[in-house]
Formats: sequence, structure tokens, C-alpha cells
Amino acid sequence: MLHSSFEQNQSPIQKLRRETTPKIPSILKHIQSLQAHPKDKMHANTHQDELQRLFPLTYGQSLIEFDEVSNLPTKPLKVGVVLSGGQAPGGHNVIAGLYDALQAFHEDSQLFGFLNGPAGILKNQTLLIEESTIDPYRNQGGFDLLGSGRTKIETEEQLRESLKTMNALDLDGLVVVGGDDSNTNAAVLAETFKKAGCKTVVIGVPKTIDGDLKNEHVEVSFGFDTACKIYSEMIGNLEKDALSSKKYYHFVKLMGRSASHIALECALQTHPNMTLIGEELAHNKSTLKDITKQIADMVCARSAKGLEYGVILIPEGLIEFIPEIGQLLKELNMLLAPEKPYQMHVTTQGAKALNAHLSAKSLNAFETLPELIKNQMLLDRDPHGNVQVAMIATETLLMMLVKKELEQRAVSGQFSGSFNPVSHYFGYEGRAGLPSLFDSNYCYSLGAVAALLVKNQVTGYMSIVKKLNLPVEDWQICGIPLTTMMNVEMRHGKLKPVIKKALVELDSSSFKVFEQQRSEWQVVDHYRSPGPMQFTGDPAISESIPLSLMETTSYAIVPEQLVKA
Amino acid sequence: MLHSSFEQNQSPIQKLRRETTPKIPSILKHIQSLQAHPKDKMHANTHQDELQRLFPLTYGQSLIEFDEVSNLPTKPLKVGVVLSGGQAPGGHNVIAGLYDALQAFHEDSQLFGFLNGPAGILKNQTLLIEESTIDPYRNQGGFDLLGSGRTKIETEEQLRESLKTMNALDLDGLVVVGGDDSNTNAAVLAETFKKAGCKTVVIGVPKTIDGDLKNEHVEVSFGFDTACKIYSEMIGNLEKDALSSKKYYHFVKLMGRSASHIALECALQTHPNMTLIGEELAHNKSTLKDITKQIADMVCARSAKGLEYGVILIPEGLIEFIPEIGQLLKELNMLLAPEKPYQMHVTTQGAKALNAHLSAKSLNAFETLPELIKNQMLLDRDPHGNVQVAMIATETLLMMLVKKELEQRAVSGQFSGSFNPVSHYFGYEGRAGLPSLFDSNYCYSLGAVAALLVKNQVTGYMSIVKKLNLPVEDWQICGIPLTTMMNVEMRHGKLKPVIKKALVELDSSSFKVFEQQRSEWQVVDHYRSPGPMQFTGDPAISESIPLSLMETTSYAIVPEQLVKA
Repeated sequence: MLHSSFEQNQSPIQKLRRETTPKIPSILKHIQSLQAHPKDKMHANTHQDELQRLFPLTYGQSLIEFDEVSNLPTKPLKVGVVLSGGQAPGGHNVIAGLYDALQAFHEDSQLFGFLNGPAGILKNQTLLIEESTIDPYRNQGGFDLLGSGRTKIETEEQLRESLKTMNALDLDGLVVVGGDDSNTNAAVLAETFKKAGCKTVVIGVPKTIDGDLKNEHVEVSFGFDTACKIYSEMIGNLEKDALSSKKYYHFVKLMGRSASHIALECALQTHPNMTLIGEELAHNKSTLKDITKQIADMVCARSAKGLEYGVILIPEGLIEFIPEIGQLLKELNMLLAPEKPYQMHVTTQGAKALNAHLSAKSLNAFETLPELIKNQMLLDRDPHGNVQVAMIATETLLMMLVKKELEQRAVSGQFSGSFNPVSHYFGYEGRAGLPSLFDSNYCYSLGAVAALLVKNQVTGYMSIVKKLNLPVEDWQICGIPLTTMMNVEMRHGKLKPVIKKALVELDSSSFKVFEQQRSEWQVVDHYRSPGPMQFTGDPAISESIPLSLMETTSYAIVPEQLVKA
Repeated sequence: MLHSSFEQNQSPIQKLRRETTPKIPSILKHIQSLQAHPKDKMHANTHQDELQRLFPLTYGQSLIEFDEVSNLPTKPLKVGVVLSGGQAPGGHNVIAGLYDALQAFHEDSQLFGFLNGPAGILKNQTLLIEESTIDPYRNQGGFDLLGSGRTKIETEEQLRESLKTMNALDLDGLVVVGGDDSNTNAAVLAETFKKAGCKTVVIGVPKTIDGDLKNEHVEVSFGFDTACKIYSEMIGNLEKDALSSKKYYHFVKLMGRSASHIALECALQTHPNMTLIGEELAHNKSTLKDITKQIADMVCARSAKGLEYGVILIPEGLIEFIPEIGQLLKELNMLLAPEKPYQMHVTTQGAKALNAHLSAKSLNAFETLPELIKNQMLLDRDPHGNVQVAMIATETLLMMLVKKELEQRAVSGQFSGSFNPVSHYFGYEGRAGLPSLFDSNYCYSLGAVAALLVKNQVTGYMSIVKKLNLPVEDWQICGIPLTTMMNVEMRHGKLKPVIKKALVELDSSSFKVFEQQRSEWQVVDHYRSPGPMQFTGDPAISESIPLSLMETTSYAIVPEQLVKA
């Protein structure tokens, strides 16, 4: 009923996308004839010994590439797929690519989708995916075919349940579509299953709009491109609006958790007047006061030129990178963890109960915050007791602080303009949109490569598609051992292997391009509107890739041009 | 410098759009040969005598149509154009259509753009528009070529200044691009100029994303289509997100001032679980309590089916239509007008000073509101002392009230689900986006027809393009006297002629289509994602028009299909 209703309500563009076949790399055109070719053994960059100890059966495996051979024997495969964590546009195409590849291998292959994320593995709740099941979801946004969830498979009990499900379904492979945490989980499952003599191999697929699952092997996670395109369309519109009405400062908070990848990509796409990069502020040890001053300085400089409007981008994780606030959050997270008694104190006695327990520095930072933000910090917490970073209205906090700063400057005659801030949060709108052509093609290939890795019975690997800045035909494929991307962190007194979350690097070429131009963008409007995503027409538009993926700076403003203008 | 910077920073899609020639109705293909053909005299539907008295020179004029003739004499024309009020996508194409038509009439014609809205008329600040000026702005969003403004030309002094500017520039015509207020203003200017023996004719162009400038002559104002498409893209994405993560209720407030046209169009496009229509709530005399109950009932019904998520659309003007709140706003607006002493009382003594001055009913309504909303009502006011409707967080108000209601129901065992609301406001993002193909074509024609009306030296007319649900070639053009669209209202003890703001009519076919399906949408998800606007490819997608403009209900869900599904 649900699926029929979805089909019946599809808009013309959803139908058009559904009927479109994704482009694939040349090598995948003969997917039936591809055989795994193990290359060099691979190692993590750090903690090799610990990882070897933690993953005795799956650490130190080889890079897997594929060669075309003839007369490959085929047999039907049984594979499970799970969508884990927040949505990212393209998830359905991973399933489609996986399904089509399994069918190409053998028409009796079976694909089971686990329902509502990893919880579906624990409960063995599945949907058998057939052509009629996947068809309406080809090239569509959302994770609604299977649903998703944030359950983590961590305890011994959960690992046993998972093993039971694998055996019950007699799976040859399990494909885990997720971010850094879910892929860490996938590595643990791979080791566990292998140790138990279970035949099910585990393959990860790099998903997250946040762009923080990225390393020497993973050029970009899927969904990042679409989310940035959707946010950039809206930012470009706000810039045009600001430039036309000339009276508002738009403070735009962008989804993306800790890292500022989305903010950086959107900045390159839209040239706003200011973009705060959390990693840079942390590097410079900027305080909240420094940031407030920085924004106020720009407002004053623009006002002096008669420009009483602007657009400022703020990554949602910003607040974690401001040292005194970061420290405060850490202390609050410790104090307010669910098992701690302070949880109750805070709700029953208010913030005062905290005074005795916060460090002097953190208490000071806390006291300088507006009431609204204090309340959010104390009351909006996730089930683990952590402050929900996205819930903290950083954009409102900065608006309030800048307004106050400008009022003070007005008194001393340093500012005589007007300042009308408007806040925005672009988040949920970008997670489930129709995937861009880039994400549609990329995801379909990721699914196909995952199928190849399962077929070749390697475990603990990530499906990799690379050379993404080349035409799709020239994209390359391989499998990389998940443990290669890991390091080991001490958490709660235990060694914990994790896939490192990638932050924006201040010496990356995309940051450098941004850095080179941003002071110009502050005082001269160089607004750029990338417009809505296009699915047909000029490939330079419809097949564009994230600017932060391009090696070239050809799109950048060349200073000489400015001089001539 | 600003313009060069704009050109230099144009994205590929902005360039593509810039290079595209709009489609025009067949009749405009020989625009040089078109001559005005006055038809029947036209009258307003009401207040004919008053309008005759108020507009002795421009009331009761004829409908103007156009015939093709040969050997029309041509002479250069001098025309001014002003963009008035909030942006609407397509404004630049009105200017382009006007410019190209004037050039087609005579290459020595001149077009002056008044800067920053009607204030530019008072100060005689203009930009001479030439091919190189308009070229980068063809098919682009925003009003940034000229800027806009909300100054009204009303006083004797202002009318004199305007007359002076017309004479100084020796204008044959003035084209006023604006909403209901600005077009009312245009009618007054037309009468004033004619009375003064000034040759400048005045022509209005119907602009507003809100869709409330609409009547038997104006099928839709420009910008409405694009704004609704942008909002619908985002709403469709939120629906997909809600359906995938299954844990949030999205409360989406939509721009659009008093009327609920945008909310209704977006509802037809996206099939959300609930859409509040202000006009209907007013008709039913629904109280805030009724609306709260209505939403809570839906949350409970969905929860009983295991659906703990949803999407609810809220028009920004909603609060005006709720009787007790409407009355409260009226009283507050009277009490807090800038010239009134209460303004000061409120800021210095807080809300208590109001108690003695509000009616018992309004005081009661005020007291039931959450603090946040009370503060907004008292403090966020426009220069005329009016509560800024868009600033009132209606979506937050409803979220708070529904949450409270559900908590009470939980206590009595009527609700055992979860309710996680998330608020959104879609507004500024939709005012300045790249215009849809429909708005691009429509605006270009509106500009051309305005040029024709100026050339034919008729004054006090609106440029009209109609039969908009037919292919562009078959669109029809005419001029309608502005006074025909007016009625007369008593304001501050004076008779004031105004173009009536069109509200959603509860017997319109678009409301009926919505009404027929909405109860189904509440409990079965029929979400629909119209996706991002397309500028090339299948015309069924790229050239689509607002659903509320279509006579057909072919897009609607046919109940039989549901049964079969």
C-alpha cells in the first residue's frame, strides 16, 4: 500500500528520474567477467599493532582490484543490505546498483533489505527486494524503501543476534551503508563473523552528507554533493534577496555535524560575505568574543561602504570548535550523562547546581551566554546525555552577540548603520532530496562494487569508486580493507578502533582557494547563484561535481579580472 | 563594478538562462504592427459612483485589445520603470520585455530604471538601461539591477515631486511593477498626471509571490509560480526525510502575507498531512484551541497507526484569521501606533500597562499565549506600529500548544506516542530565485504589453497576459483599467480606493480539489516531491504552471486507484 501510494504520487520529475539509467564506469560494463585481483597488503597509518591485535583475521588484507576474465563460474548469491544513520541522497541507488549486479551475476540471487537500520538486523526484519520493489525507488531521494536507524551493534549480545540473523538468512554478504561509525561497526561485524566461521562477508559503503568520511581512499562520501547543491541553491537565493532588498543580514547555519566541509563547499559555490570554518577557529584558538568581533568588524566595514546587508555561513558544529565552549560542552556532557545524578539536579534545581562542578573557566563561559542558549545546553540532550549540537541555535547566539557588540560600538560612535539579522537553518531539506546526477551515478557504482566484493568473498572491505573528477566512464573501482582507515582511540578507559572523522584541512587546496578570495568577498559582493539542480541538458551543469573535489581553481576569481572590471 | 562582478560570478546555469530567449505569445511576434483597439467600457464591480468621483479622468475607460495593422508610424519613446515592494522572480524579465519592445518600436527609444523603488521617482534617481545593462539580468532572479523599496507615493508633496520627475525626464510612460498597493498607487499617479496635463501615462504590472493580486482579469501575479516551486521542492524533501527517519513532525511556515494561496498551491504540489488555510479557519470561526485540537487529533490518529511523523503547512498570515487573535492584533495595532503614548508604556513598563486598554476578550487571548509570542507581539513592530505578522513565530506557537495538549492527553491515556516537532520558515529563499520558465516567459510578455500600452498612450491600465494554462503561443494580451479592479474602503475616516487583496476562495476549484483529498492525506502518506525546477528537457516538467491555475483535476488522486492499490 505504501509503495503503491508512492508510485501513484510520483511527480513528473520523479518519474523521469526513475526511468533514467545511471551512467557507469567502463570497467563495470562487463561486471559478470570481473574477478578480484588482490594487490599489495595494506596497513593503517597509525596504531598498526593495536589494529592487528583487535582485528587478527581482517587486518593487513590486500587492496582488491578487478580484472576482466572469461568463463567465470557463477552461482546465486544471497545478500543483505542495511541503511544506517541519517539519510543521504543516493541511498536507493546503492541498493539498485547492488540489486542489478547480483542479478547480472545470477538471476536466482536474492537481496534482502533490513528494515529501519541495524535494528532490522538484530530483529531479522527484512524486505525481499525484487525488480518491482526497487523500480519506483531508482534515482530517488530518501531512505524510505527500507527506513534507517541509529542503533549501534556493539554489545556481545547484539553481535550474537546479528550472527544468528546472518545464519538464519544464509547470507553470503552483508552490505552496510553508513558513515564513519557504521563502517567501524561493519569492520567489527566482519571480524566477528569470520571468527565464528560464518560465511557472511561484510562490505561497507561510504555514506554521509557531512563529508567527514573522507581519506586517501575515499574521495567523497555519497550525498555530500546533493546536500551541498540544495543548500547552495537556497544560499544563492538569499544572496540575491539580500542584494535586492539591501536590508538584511542572513545568518545561515548549515547541517554537517562537527566538520565544516559543507560550509566550505557552499562557500565556494556561492561566495557569501563570510563563512566560519570551525577547524580554522579551533586552530587559531578563537574565542566567542573573537568571532563576534570578526563579524561586527565586517558589518562596520560594509556599512561604511553603504552596504547594510550580507550573508554569513555557519557550520552547525562550530560551537564545538570554540575552545571555551568546547570545554564547557565536554564538562556538561560528563556531568549530565544519564547515569550521573546531576541530570536530576539540573532539571529540578536549575543551572545553579552546576556551579560547584564546572571549572572556573567553563563556568565563566557559561555565564556569558544568553539565557536561551543556556537552556538549550541544559535541556536538549540526546539519549547518551550529549548536548545535541544541531539543536543549539549557534546562528541565534551569534546574532545576539553581534547585535550587542554593534550597539556598544554605536554608543562610542564607531557604528552608525543598521543591522537586521535573520536566521536560517538548512538541514533536513538537504538529506532526502532527489540525488544529483553525480550522486545517482556514484551510488549505483558503489552498489555494484559492493556486489563484486561479496561475490569474491572478501570481508571487512569498503566499496570504493575513485577518480571522480574524471568523466564517469573513467572512474576506477577497488576494495579497501576497512581497518586501513582506522586508528585507535582511548574511550572510557578502553582501546576503541574507529574510522577517523575527517575535518577540513587548512592546507587543502579547496580551503586555500577559499582563503585567497574571502577577504574580497567581505566587502565587494561576489555572490554566485548555482541555481536548482538540473537533471538534463548541458552536462557541465547537470553532471557537475563538488568544487572541493576538483583539483583546478579555474572557477575562482582571478584578481586581474577584478582590476579590469 | 557591481555589474561586472555579477557577470563575472555568474554560475553556468545563470549563464545558460541569460542566453535563453523567452517564448512569446504569437500575437507579440509582430509587436511593431500592433495597434490598440478599444473595446467595451469597463466598470468596477462595486463602488462605481465613488470611483467615478475619485478618478474622474481615468475611471470608466475601455478594455484595450490589439490588432495587427501595417504602416504604423513610429517614434522614439521615453519610458521609466520602477520595481516596488518585495522581490518576485521574473522582475528583470519585465524590464527586458519592456526594453526589447521599446527598441523594436524605435531604436532611439530610452528606458530609465528608477533606483530603489518609488523613492527613486521622488528623488529622480535613475539608471539608463541599455543592451549591455539588461543583458546580464535576462531571466535572472532578484531585483538587484535597480533595487526595490516600499516607499508609498501618497502625499500631495510626493505627488508633486513625482510629477516633477516625469516632466524633467520628459517621460511618455511610467511602468509600475508591484502588488495591490503599488498598483493602487499607479492608478492615483495616472489620474494625477492626467489632471496636471502631464503626458506621462502610467501602466501597472501585477507582481507578488503571495498570489493575492488576482481577479477576473489577472489570472496570477508573477513570481507566485517560482516561489511555490522553490517551497514545494523543500517541502517534498522534508516529506521524504520524515518518511525515512520516521520521527519528526515538520511545522513549515510559508511566506505569503495574509492570504493562503502559497500554502494551498504547495499543498496541491506536495500532499502534506495537514495544511491550514487561514480563510477557511476564519470562515469556520476556528479558535486557537480548535486548531490545536485539530492538529493534536491528527497526531493521535497517526500515532495509533504507528506513524510518529508528519508535515504540516502553515501560512504566515494564519494568525490574522483566528478571530480572537485577529481582534487582539487590531487592538494592539491601535494602542501601539507610533503616535500613541502607549508605545512608550509598553517598552518601559511591560505588558501590564496594556491591561486597562485591551478588551476583556483580547486580554484573555493575550494571557493564554506563551511568553515568547507575547514579546514578539509587543516589540517587533513595523514603522507604522503594526505587528509584523511574518515575525510572529506561528509555527512555534502551534508546536508549543500542540505539545502541551498532547502531554495532557498522555496523562489521561489518550496518547502514548512520541511527538518531536521541528520548525521551518520558508520565505526569503523563494523571493529571489531564478525565475521558472513560466515566470520568465510571463514576465517578458507583461513587459512587452506594458510597452504597447505606453505606445498607445493609454493611462491607468494594467498590463495583462491571459489564458496562461494554454501553450505560450496561445496566450492572449490586453490592457485593463486599474480602476476596474478597485473598491472603496473607509480608512481613518476617509474614503480610500484600493485594489482588493484576493483571498483563497473556499468555492474555488483548487480549494475543492484540496478539500476532497486532505482527509486521506492525514492518515495515509501521499507525499509528492516536485523536485528542483528544471530549465531544459521535457516541457511537461520545465514549463509546468501552478496547479491552482489549471482547470483540470487530472493530477489528483482518483479514489478508485487507491482501492486498487
